[in-house]
Amino acid sequence: MSSSKQLHLTAFMRPVSLHTGAWRYPGAYPDANFNLKHLKSFIQALEAAKFDAFFMADHLAVLNMPVEALKRSHTVTSFEPFTLLSALSQVTERIGLAATASTTYDEPYHIARRFASLDHLSEGRAAWNIVTTGNPESSKNFGLDEHVQHSERYKRAREFYDVVTGLWDSFADDAFVRDPESGIYVDPEKIHTLNHKGDDLKVKGPLNIARPVQGWPVIVQAGQSEPGRQLAAETAEVVFCSPRDLEASKLLYDDIKGRTKAAGRNPDHIKILPAAMVLISDSVEEAQQKRLKLDSLVHYDSAISSLSISLGTDASKFDPDGPLPPEEALPATNASHTSRASVIKLAETEGLTVRQLAGRYGGYAGLAFVGTAETVADEMEQWLEEGASDGFTVTLPFLPEGLDAVTQKLVPELQRRGLFRKEYEGTTLREHLGLPRPGNRFFEKEVSNAVNGGSRTLAMNGKRDLDVDDDLPEVKKRKAQS
Amino acid sequence: MSSSKQLHLTAFMRPVSLHTGAWRYPGAYPDANFNLKHLKSFIQALEAAKFDAFFMADHLAVLNMPVEALKRSHTVTSFEPFTLLSALSQVTERIGLAATASTTYDEPYHIARRFASLDHLSEGRAAWNIVTTGNPESSKNFGLDEHVQHSERYKRAREFYDVVTGLWDSFADDAFVRDPESGIYVDPEKIHTLNHKGDDLKVKGPLNIARPVQGWPVIVQAGQSEPGRQLAAETAEVVFCSPRDLEASKLLYDDIKGRTKAAGRNPDHIKILPAAMVLISDSVEEAQQKRLKLDSLVHYDSAISSLSISLGTDASKFDPDGPLPPEEALPATNASHTSRASVIKLAETEGLTVRQLAGRYGGYAGLAFVGTAETVADEMEQWLEEGASDGFTVTLPFLPEGLDAVTQKLVPELQRRGLFRKEYEGTTLREHLGLPRPGNRFFEKEVSNAVNGGSRTLAMNGKRDLDVDDDLPEVKKRKAQS
Repeated sequence: MSSSKQLHLTAFMRPVSLHTGAWRYPGAYPDANFNLKHLKSFIQALEAAKFDAFFMADHLAVLNMPVEALKRSHTVTSFEPFTLLSALSQVTERIGLAATASTTYDEPYHIARRFASLDHLSEGRAAWNIVTTGNPESSKNFGLDEHVQHSERYKRAREFYDVVTGLWDSFADDAFVRDPESGIYVDPEKIHTLNHKGDDLKVKGPLNIARPVQGWPVIVQAGQSEPGRQLAAETAEVVFCSPRDLEASKLLYDDIKGRTKAAGRNPDHIKILPAAMVLISDSVEEAQQKRLKLDSLVHYDSAISSLSISLGTDASKFDPDGPLPPEEALPATNASHTSRASVIKLAETEGLTVRQLAGRYGGYAGLAFVGTAETVADEMEQWLEEGASDGFTVTLPFLPEGLDAVTQKLVPELQRRGLFRKEYEGTTLREHLGLPRPGNRFFEKEVSNAVNGGSRTLAMNGKRDLDVDDDLPEVKKRKAQS
Repeated sequence: MSSSKQLHLTAFMRPVSLHTGAWRYPGAYPDANFNLKHLKSFIQALEAAKFDAFFMADHLAVLNMPVEALKRSHTVTSFEPFTLLSALSQVTERIGLAATASTTYDEPYHIARRFASLDHLSEGRAAWNIVTTGNPESSKNFGLDEHVQHSERYKRAREFYDVVTGLWDSFADDAFVRDPESGIYVDPEKIHTLNHKGDDLKVKGPLNIARPVQGWPVIVQAGQSEPGRQLAAETAEVVFCSPRDLEASKLLYDDIKGRTKAAGRNPDHIKILPAAMVLISDSVEEAQQKRLKLDSLVHYDSAISSLSISLGTDASKFDPDGPLPPEEALPATNASHTSRASVIKLAETEGLTVRQLAGRYGGYAGLAFVGTAETVADEMEQWLEEGASDGFTVTLPFLPEGLDAVTQKLVPELQRRGLFRKEYEGTTLREHLGLPRPGNRFFEKEVSNAVNGGSRTLAMNGKRDLDVDDDLPEVKKRKAQS
């Protein structure tokens, strides 16, 4: 098979891994949270494999978990993403650097400034993952007794985005004259004072930093809930979503691309990259065995409580080493039937014991590609071809082995099929992703393509970047079929 | 001369220089604000000269200045300090990394986390310059119409410090077990939840990062105003002050060391490092000529308004190229008589024209050591010997020339006299400065030396670090003389 379409791949990371058992996996680096040497080796391997970006997950609190789970968790602590990515910018040259930052518990002036600075330091490789912070524990670290409500968080996030991007446009790209002879350093006509006054935010500006190398750092958004999808459609350039399978991803893909078009933007300029755990080995069976081994490293006490939540009943009463009791033998539940059904389906499909199911739910039970380089490349190609994604937000089951398997086995197979770059073609993350450099809304009036009250400027080089009459081929096809 | 006492030297930087005319000086890098290559060369030169720390100044706004001054200013924009220092941590190995961060316009959880992260990334080289942010323009970038009042800012700063240091102590130094066999990652008995509820701040904790390498990053404070001096005495380990001359510095030194002792701390554990511009050349006259040349690069329009403020009268009415009119010919003023007197003294001492005076006040009119390596080393030695300082916060008049003159001429002379290290003896900034690693207030109860309601813990290794019955020798001597 071959394809003219290209995958985009980012690696979504916690230093040790996102899987809670990973720090105990043979060869793992349990101290990677605070050992920069390991993080350097990870990002350099991803850059050698030509990944689009290295994407650091984040929390604003030690997660609220029972002490039995807390004491076994490697996800409690880590480097702070901005300081980490700034450091890593100096040991890499091309790979993008994506950081999560909260619109609920931070100030737009700070956020705008740090991402702009990271973009300058990295010569155009920064991306901002806009999050509203779902973890209720965070509020207590920022002076509040209660978590800010979901709808209020999304309302503030939308305004926050307008302010941050407005601050990035404080200086025209050619504002700095720096002529020692005349003594003119900056052209005051090319500085814009934002004077934003909105429902949630009041910010004067200008930002005290030159316009970022990329114009704006790339905007990433998770976009799963209703307001999250809408925020993504209006603002995001990369969507980091979590569909459970191919069909669910197609629906999400169409929905977000459609909303993007409805918001007056070019759907090509939003890349949908579902999160998937990728586990590669030399045979499918071996890969599955590694997954079971990994899941088994999640302690049973915390694993069984995760399974109980998904089943809507106390699973600790079942025989750990026996099969899941048949559906009719499970007590009735008021919890999610979809969730219970997917546990039952998984138990059947993979023939898992209660203990194994617990390990899966206590570790990582989301979308996963587990197999050989060939079988996983087949799956990825199918997703790309069928319009379920523009690539993937790859999570790694365990490191360094799981990372090396992806970069040394899967990536060459994708390259052989023409699905993934063999060399970076550009220098900035926008260039890797095929995204335009945004024009400056305050200084390039003729080329602006304003959306939502003039807050969104996507055009560049004097050309509108959106032909609103065109559907994407996949969207057209599915519309015709339905 | 030789001395058993040792100077501590930090370099207080804006990327191009603190002097407003510096970007026009021959050989300068006017684009250093956003050109990391230059910053790398500066910090590497300072590290080769064994400086204690590289110290980045900061603003939270484009300074409010008339457009005539704004368009000539290189101080308007620059990298953000955290991202910059994190990047520079990867191109250096030993030099300390000090960043300014505001207690008025940021959150203690963020500040604690970033400095802890920088300390981990740099393997123990971070320092926090606590500022309350004096620039009224900043408030408008953070949702406020009016700047927070001075006394309120200092009250919050004191509480903020307690919260940040408390968050740094969230984990015992040996909290992380990371035993793959038993599956125990962290000992929950060694995690402390702060639960701070004060007048200005409410922060639950724990911080989601391991205790910093240095225990706490080094605390720096400016300490000039009355509440500033008190805050420094209670919290600072390095004081970055701006006395106008030797005698003023002795008074400040005694005052802050005395307040430190009164606060129950060891005065040896607070280093007083006055800020001084250091300009070295091959002869004193040549150095003075370079200073005049530098001052002349400040545009007359902005320079004369600075002089007018210092004189308390409109200096633009005087002949720019004539001498300052005699004191009796100046109109009466309600402004500071001290300030006017120092202008008159400067005009007499250096025989400056009105234009030259304007350049001095528009550029940099604070404490300066201008001369050869020998004459400046003499001055620094005198300050050290007479108990006016423990070293200096060096500002550079122009770069790279002014930096090279300090590292290649002054530093070797100081080393020859035994006043400055030839090699780093330790690896952390605390070790460079001769400061103890703070004990953890929550997990080392027996060794704590609590001050101010238990919020300050200075002792380490089971020994109290303060003998409150002893005065410093210089303080004793001056007390006896007075």
